[in-house]
Amino acid sequence: MSAIGKEIYDLADRIFPIGRSITGEGVLETLRIINEELKEAKCPLLDIKNVPSNTVVYDWKVPREWKIRFGYIENEKHERIIDYAVNPLHIMGYSIPVDKWVDLDELKQYVYIQEDMPDAIPYVTSYYKERFGFCMTKEQRDSLPEGKYHMYIDSELFDGNLTYGELVIKGKSDKEIFFSTYVCHPHMANNESSGPALSTYLIKYVNSLTDRRYTYRFIFIPETIGSITYLSKNLEYMKKHIVAGYNLSCVGDNNNYSIVESRYANTEADRALSNVLDHNVKYTRYDYLNRGSDERQYNAPGVDLPVVGFSRSLFGRFPEYHTSKDDMSLVSPEGFAGSYDIMTQVIDLHEHNGKYRIKVLCEPQLGKRNLYPTVSRKGSYEEIKSLTNFIAYADGTNDLIDISNRIGVAVKELIEIKDKLSVHDLLENVNEQ
Amino acid sequence: MSAIGKEIYDLADRIFPIGRSITGEGVLETLRIINEELKEAKCPLLDIKNVPSNTVVYDWKVPREWKIRFGYIENEKHERIIDYAVNPLHIMGYSIPVDKWVDLDELKQYVYIQEDMPDAIPYVTSYYKERFGFCMTKEQRDSLPEGKYHMYIDSELFDGNLTYGELVIKGKSDKEIFFSTYVCHPHMANNESSGPALSTYLIKYVNSLTDRRYTYRFIFIPETIGSITYLSKNLEYMKKHIVAGYNLSCVGDNNNYSIVESRYANTEADRALSNVLDHNVKYTRYDYLNRGSDERQYNAPGVDLPVVGFSRSLFGRFPEYHTSKDDMSLVSPEGFAGSYDIMTQVIDLHEHNGKYRIKVLCEPQLGKRNLYPTVSRKGSYEEIKSLTNFIAYADGTNDLIDISNRIGVAVKELIEIKDKLSVHDLLENVNEQ
Amino acid sequence: MSAIGKEIYDLADRIFPIGRSITGEGVLETLRIINEELKEAKCPLLDIKNVPSNTVVYDWKVPREWKIRFGYIENEKHERIIDYAVNPLHIMGYSIPVDKWVDLDELKQYVYIQEDMPDAIPYVTSYYKERFGFCMTKEQRDSLPEGKYHMYIDSELFDGNLTYGELVIKGKSDKEIFFSTYVCHPHMANNESSGPALSTYLIKYVNSLTDRRYTYRFIFIPETIGSITYLSKNLEYMKKHIVAGYNLSCVGDNNNYSIVESRYANTEADRALSNVLDHNVKYTRYDYLNRGSDERQYNAPGVDLPVVGFSRSLFGRFPEYHTSKDDMSLVSPEGFAGSYDIMTQVIDLHEHNGKYRIKVLCEPQLGKRNLYPTVSRKGSYEEIKSLTNFIAYADGTNDLIDISNRIGVAVKELIEIKDKLSVHDLLENVNEQ
Repeated sequence: MSAIGKEIYDLADRIFPIGRSITGEGVLETLRIINEELKEAKCPLLDIKNVPSNTVVYDWKVPREWKIRFGYIENEKHERIIDYAVNPLHIMGYSIPVDKWVDLDELKQYVYIQEDMPDAIPYVTSYYKERFGFCMTKEQRDSLPEGKYHMYIDSELFDGNLTYGELVIKGKSDKEIFFSTYVCHPHMANNESSGPALSTYLIKYVNSLTDRRYTYRFIFIPETIGSITYLSKNLEYMKKHIVAGYNLSCVGDNNNYSIVESRYANTEADRALSNVLDHNVKYTRYDYLNRGSDERQYNAPGVDLPVVGFSRSLFGRFPEYHTSKDDMSLVSPEGFAGSYDIMTQVIDLHEHNGKYRIKVLCEPQLGKRNLYPTVSRKGSYEEIKSLTNFIAYADGTNDLIDISNRIGVAVKELIEIKDKLSVHDLLENVNEQ
Repeated sequence: MSAIGKEIYDLADRIFPIGRSITGEGVLETLRIINEELKEAKCPLLDIKNVPSNTVVYDWKVPREWKIRFGYIENEKHERIIDYAVNPLHIMGYSIPVDKWVDLDELKQYVYIQEDMPDAIPYVTSYYKERFGFCMTKEQRDSLPEGKYHMYIDSELFDGNLTYGELVIKGKSDKEIFFSTYVCHPHMANNESSGPALSTYLIKYVNSLTDRRYTYRFIFIPETIGSITYLSKNLEYMKKHIVAGYNLSCVGDNNNYSIVESRYANTEADRALSNVLDHNVKYTRYDYLNRGSDERQYNAPGVDLPVVGFSRSLFGRFPEYHTSKDDMSLVSPEGFAGSYDIMTQVIDLHEHNGKYRIKVLCEPQLGKRNLYPTVSRKGSYEEIKSLTNFIAYADGTNDLIDISNRIGVAVKELIEIKDKLSVHDLLENVNEQ
Repeated sequence: MSAIGKEIYDLADRIFPIGRSITGEGVLETLRIINEELKEAKCPLLDIKNVPSNTVVYDWKVPREWKIRFGYIENEKHERIIDYAVNPLHIMGYSIPVDKWVDLDELKQYVYIQEDMPDAIPYVTSYYKERFGFCMTKEQRDSLPEGKYHMYIDSELFDGNLTYGELVIKGKSDKEIFFSTYVCHPHMANNESSGPALSTYLIKYVNSLTDRRYTYRFIFIPETIGSITYLSKNLEYMKKHIVAGYNLSCVGDNNNYSIVESRYANTEADRALSNVLDHNVKYTRYDYLNRGSDERQYNAPGVDLPVVGFSRSLFGRFPEYHTSKDDMSLVSPEGFAGSYDIMTQVIDLHEHNGKYRIKVLCEPQLGKRNLYPTVSRKGSYEEIKSLTNFIAYADGTNDLIDISNRIGVAVKELIEIKDKLSVHDLLENVNEQ
């Protein structure tokens, strides 16, 4: 497992340095790297989709595309004190061009710092109002000497496209399990090089499943405007087909596990992820009031998709969030391996889940099938408790999650019991009749 | 607010001294004072209704009217040791006439005291069995010297009327919010000069509301027999029209807030009052097993009206209850102001409540409407959490109470948000479609 | 009450020593003793039923009948070191014949001991695989000297019958209350001479009830194969008629009370027994995951009978369970009396239960029926709280159990109140309309 953690970490590391925004070349570059990775693994590739600027998407409009060539502040000696080329976080996202010498006081009006973390560059954007800005550490700002400074940004906002990646892997059913992650955050690791990296490896896992029950849909989009755009094109189909969906964000650190529940915490995704987390790790449940990523759109009134958020440390809850401190040292192979383990168990759960019914009345005679000790003595019954408890609730009204929750046994263990009972023709799946 | 508290206190003080019972002149005198007050405020007046003695009302019969002219005990020196004129509590309610000299031992058979409160005169009645009785403090009784005493009551039980007051203030809808309080307790403050005084000021508040949604029904009745009588005449109409009702009793002290839940704690009145209390004050929930006032009739099987009780300190739970200690020092302008604040918030809640639905799919773009900061940085999303959480649950299935309970924001704040979103045409009320 | 406890104890003591198994003479002998007891009490007798070996019963087959004449181990001096005639537990249940001299090492392969209780003989069986075995204390086994030992069992497995007893006592309704207990455990007291003994006395109790509402069905069967056999013959009728059922096991000790809930803890039997236990004794609730006796069959998927388990100390939870230590000193007249008290209260509850409705609107006038004090003073209302609370919830939707749970008053008290209100024609049973 830690081998695969290392592979996911390496992919995250590869896309980490890219300067991304909700539109522009960074998104495309990220998707290209992911497709290289998928191609090597002989997986189907992401479809790259473009949506023109100004397209109306529900209450929003696709913004103009942002292109940035250079961005820096230089002092009187023409030394660049910050530079986009060194760290894209130094330039506020969607900054309009500027080319102006100002004194220190005026400069400071355009400089954003992270008050509570003096050595971190904050991540700041202004997508929907035209302005420019620079970000640096509080320490750097506070130590700037009086003098003249050259604010220089060579950028462009133009009618172009919003770009995203999409991949559908078909299964026997056209019912879908859905994964969403985002590719708009520049030069940060947990939020958000981790989500795309994990999603890529889940694609490989799904592709490796022979005899897949479900169809799987993976999307790699810019946050908020990307999910709104995607929904505006696909909502009706998604509402009909998606059984459970997962928004993946901040999945690379090794400190915590988190679920962000759906609006009413009652979807198949809530049930499945909660159950797997319950039986595997300690974790924190966040109700929908703690939402913050694209689950906001998937769960919006009228959208109503069965989507939850999955994270290790939750966005907004770890100190490095949305700063330059969210770098590759914050994530780890172990962190990725843990996320991968949970999400592949969730996939397995969906693949095997169903409402099972025992085919005989009264307890089956397990002894004659070598499923029960033939000498009966104090304690005999305890030894095969998971098996008999499974049978006791396999009455056609409970799915594996219900049974797991009731008898306190992980679904991965129940899948083995189900397969064993099926071999003896003792079980039927009432959903398949 | 404390100005209005003082006004309510003053009205309570005005009706406090009156000798009331379930029938008789005290009730009428009380209703007359209230009507004077309403007339001054240019409010509609209470209708005074009379129901003849012996009218059958469900399992009961309206009792004969009780008139009392004099009532006292005098000693051998013709000193009145207690006198109805000084405090009506001295004569047991509904006492029949007596005019008899007795020795101390016989006298004591007719004297009621409050064992656990030696300096208080208890409040005692015998409505449904003919007897007479006197009430005094334990201290007084125990210090009575041997000797002859003259028990004298000049009273009358005759075929007259049971009297009550009723006021309906119409709104756009014929659905009603209902308030009930009682006017049968003599010479006590919290229980019960406070309820009629508060009700009078709620009438003024309702009357001041322009564009009222609901019709409001206020009744001022004798307890138990009055509500039974009122129900026997109005039940079918009430069952069809009353949305929520409140029994007001003991609303003038400043020690506690209380709700007495309806029979199953599941009515619109339970929901509304609980929500307002939850977000404003500390209070005690009493389930229906703790009922004691007219909520007993409104919630009886087959009556089934959505009525809860509202009190500050609950009847029967404060030591001064049903004794001469329940005087105007037990209530206060602050106590009344608090009750008035809660009940007017309850009225506002009913006026504004509804199931609202956001009119766009996905989150609305709040930025373009200046409802969201345009620079997005760590913490941006937190600032407008009440607004976005309201939107998240404005899916047409939740009313303001549901949303308030779920997102932890008071309804009075949600009313402001609702109005703001309505201005931007982002919200519809699904009940009004 | 302790007189009847002694009688039940004596009956248990009479059947205690018998060597029983799931088939064979011990069962018949036990049923004969019970019938003697019933005959003395002028009760109807158990029907003795036989089901031939090899009859297919659901997933099982009735095993061949086991007859054992002798069974012992002797040493070289022909001293019997253990002997079936002394304690039937010494021979593993369903042992096939053996007649062989072996050395100590080989002997030990056939000897079962109770590792954690060195001075107890364990109870061991091998019903469904042919083998033989001996049971003794660990102390005895460990002290056996080297030498030759004669393993001797003169037993027989032959096509015979499985035997059980059944008694149906008719009531006005053909709906049934069901009791099941088992008669297959040899020479142990709590598990299981106690269940048959208590059942016998419940038969006497039911027979004494004049004007019985329900029909009562009692069965005395071998565990597991007996209930499966019985169900295979009677399931459809039982599903249509049984209202509540109780599996009685380990009901003679004086240490605890236990309920084993039904599969979803939601049957009439769960409700009734829980309520009686709640208002009478401290007890332990065991959910269905702790099942272990015939409730396993009655609750199996597709069988779905409303049956719970009732025990004092639960099977498998007391140290003496399934060993020779479960002897008549473990049970007591007090233990039996407590079980009898609970189960007869359960029977009374079923006999009287119903959804009652008060026949007047608003509170009835209790005073005129002498059910309420006519002088009303502080505290008057408290005195008759059980009565008024009963009336408050007698709305036709609650049965006695619902009301008892809600108002915190035992059903035996509510039965008295119900009868009192019925005398005054204030109550109707909505189930009987």
